[in-house]
Amino acid sequence: MIQNDTIIALATPSGVGAIAMIRLSGEDAITIVNSFFKSIKKDKSLLDQKTHTIHLGHIIDNGKVLDEVLVSVFKNPNSYTGENVIEISCHGSVFIQQEIIQLFLRNGCRMADNGEFTMRAFLNGKMDLSQAEAVADVIASNSEASHQMAIQQMRGGITNELKELRGQLLDFAALIELELDFSGEDVEFADRTKFRALVTKISTVLKRLIDSFAFGNAMKNGIPVAIIGEPNVGKSTLLNALLNEEKAIVSDIAGTTRDAIEDEVIINGVAFRFIDTAGIRETEDVVESIGIQKAYEKADKAQLVIFLVNSQKLITDSDTILEEIINIKDRFSNKRLLVIANKIDTTSDSEKERIKELIPNILLLSAKKKVGVDTLQSELTSLVNTGALSNNETIVTNSRHFEALNNALESIQSVENGIELDISSDLFAIDIRECLRYLGNITGEYDVDKDILGHIFSNFCIGK
Amino acid sequence: MIQNDTIIALATPSGVGAIAMIRLSGEDAITIVNSFFKSIKKDKSLLDQKTHTIHLGHIIDNGKVLDEVLVSVFKNPNSYTGENVIEISCHGSVFIQQEIIQLFLRNGCRMADNGEFTMRAFLNGKMDLSQAEAVADVIASNSEASHQMAIQQMRGGITNELKELRGQLLDFAALIELELDFSGEDVEFADRTKFRALVTKISTVLKRLIDSFAFGNAMKNGIPVAIIGEPNVGKSTLLNALLNEEKAIVSDIAGTTRDAIEDEVIINGVAFRFIDTAGIRETEDVVESIGIQKAYEKADKAQLVIFLVNSQKLITDSDTILEEIINIKDRFSNKRLLVIANKIDTTSDSEKERIKELIPNILLLSAKKKVGVDTLQSELTSLVNTGALSNNETIVTNSRHFEALNNALESIQSVENGIELDISSDLFAIDIRECLRYLGNITGEYDVDKDILGHIFSNFCIGK
Repeated sequence: MIQNDTIIALATPSGVGAIAMIRLSGEDAITIVNSFFKSIKKDKSLLDQKTHTIHLGHIIDNGKVLDEVLVSVFKNPNSYTGENVIEISCHGSVFIQQEIIQLFLRNGCRMADNGEFTMRAFLNGKMDLSQAEAVADVIASNSEASHQMAIQQMRGGITNELKELRGQLLDFAALIELELDFSGEDVEFADRTKFRALVTKISTVLKRLIDSFAFGNAMKNGIPVAIIGEPNVGKSTLLNALLNEEKAIVSDIAGTTRDAIEDEVIINGVAFRFIDTAGIRETEDVVESIGIQKAYEKADKAQLVIFLVNSQKLITDSDTILEEIINIKDRFSNKRLLVIANKIDTTSDSEKERIKELIPNILLLSAKKKVGVDTLQSELTSLVNTGALSNNETIVTNSRHFEALNNALESIQSVENGIELDISSDLFAIDIRECLRYLGNITGEYDVDKDILGHIFSNFCIGK
Repeated sequence: MIQNDTIIALATPSGVGAIAMIRLSGEDAITIVNSFFKSIKKDKSLLDQKTHTIHLGHIIDNGKVLDEVLVSVFKNPNSYTGENVIEISCHGSVFIQQEIIQLFLRNGCRMADNGEFTMRAFLNGKMDLSQAEAVADVIASNSEASHQMAIQQMRGGITNELKELRGQLLDFAALIELELDFSGEDVEFADRTKFRALVTKISTVLKRLIDSFAFGNAMKNGIPVAIIGEPNVGKSTLLNALLNEEKAIVSDIAGTTRDAIEDEVIINGVAFRFIDTAGIRETEDVVESIGIQKAYEKADKAQLVIFLVNSQKLITDSDTILEEIINIKDRFSNKRLLVIANKIDTTSDSEKERIKELIPNILLLSAKKKVGVDTLQSELTSLVNTGALSNNETIVTNSRHFEALNNALESIQSVENGIELDISSDLFAIDIRECLRYLGNITGEYDVDKDILGHIFSNFCIGK
């Protein structure tokens, strides 16, 4: 992996804005930019400047001023990548961005690959691999929950959890390997009681982290919620009602348009991803119709199921609906179910009473008139246990980490069993090494495979 | 105009990128950010930092880390606005951008209006009004020509042209006003010969600048070109052929997508804006048909007219086409006309000879096979006199400046006439003052009307 060349990329979003930022990293970054930079102060060279300083001047190509810019100088090793880094703040025209990047491409730079700045930061020891991976998550996060988990990981959450335990395990591993050298003499350098305690502790921590993944993954990608209901029962209106609440928060910052993730609604900082189950049609045998079946299959992917019914129908045809609810409860016994009676704006008070008698836990709502929407929001968030988030616990959101943790757990459980069965230490020494390797994979402490790095950073945007 | 409050805005394009930049300006900018910034170095306060320095740390809201950021400190008066300025480079997620902006909006900042940073730069004397106006042009420029003109203006092009002359005129004005005080005594403090020379010089410069506007405006907004021709003669194919040449240049920078300005093609750094004249239908009396008439009216707005004909038709029905060409030449006698025979890929060599005999200056072209497209490009650029650009002359592109220059010229010509007629100096003293005022309007040296400022900066983007 060549790291000595100088890379360049646009670091800010593409398109026209007030300011754009172009970033260079590599041994020659400062020298290259200096050749085309003329400070407003006479005879000022970027090469003589301290790290973390900013300089006003012009980028000049062959006598022609490309732009007036601010140049920030970061000197090896005190930079994001650990290399010499230059950041150029220029006027945000696409033309200028292009001209400046092209100028430096012609003069010793090459275009950075996706995530190459962060990959260099990892390779130069500025952050471990789990932190580097979190950078992409931080950028992609669109809700408070996903943002908080990503920031925690970027600040070394999972690393800190495992670091000490891994260190202790490493010490024991050394002692046990030592025992192997003296295998003929039946010595025990490693205190088996302490070792057993450590192995149990590691196993407990790994299990907790593994358990956090289902939650973390759902929070990162949005908690999947299925809304089941007949067509025209008000699903879209309900989604819009939920969506509008949030939009008001966003709207006073001009220029920030909501990413068009259809049917994703952020409620109290948690993203809910509504699964489209359109397709329920009334048939003679409602429950067994193919349409319903399909909707149910989609709903299988959800963590929460909302059954939306029409208030009027609930009164006129309560038997059918009650039967449907029983079937749904049966089918989705392992999921949380919310039954909602919509269109209560056309329902009289006595009818509402009637509905509540029929189904005590039902939520009365009018999506159109936005009555009861706030109650639904509270219900949805209360169904999500955000305790782990507010306690600032480490939550695993990355499937690569999840896999490594599972492998590490398997290894450490083999060790546990080995100790239990009092088998020869040379047998579980291999498992200890395996466990150490899997834990090291997460932070990238062992030599990491090029392909894995390539895969990780290919998901990054260019310029990061 | 309140200038003491602290304004905030996203300065980079909206949307997700590697990095976003949030900018604050105002007396309290550093203090406000410092309250929520925790440096990675213990006990570091932004208040104690030198101007033009960068600091790594976290933005923390109520114990919760919003992001790891780089904070740039610029101290009054050494900043873009002349005030205390903070630039925060954060991770480019829309969520983080919002959270940080909202945090500071809750704590003493307000959202910046369009162009308010630049307006403050003007009001604080960091740049004159013509330079401030050029900032928006620099950001909007999408071709080399428009970019070069905008950069020249931003660096004070028009100001430098007028500054000295205006200073000299001011001196004479003072002397002439002095003469008025001694009007009973028939003294002449102002040397009439030198004064006359100055007035002539001013008048010459103003005329040159005014003359540059037609060119500057066309270069800024794109040279309007009308393509006249029957439907299906290959207009769209021709445009695509011209467009494709340019796209290749753009494509090696990932993420920079061409703004979808339909039918604008940049050739050798100059933008050409193709005017849609679709609507010519063959009728018995081709030239006099309403369709043609409409196309002609649209073509009236063009500086160049391309008459596109089908090579085959030129051979089989040359009389009609020759007559059309004569009519077009007649109609657009003050415009440059290019006659192009398209679809020459289906024409034999002898037919090509025949066409050239009929119309000696005709351009033979196949838009589909991209034959002759490069010749057309050279023709188009040679028709535009870019000499002024390469000589780095000041070119007026702003209609407000154009108007002020015209008014100034009118005043100075009155003065000229006054001197010529040897009229009393108190009569042309008013004209001198008028001329000074109009020249001052351009650079904003006189008190500028709030409404005019509002109008100028409302065209800016937010964050600049």
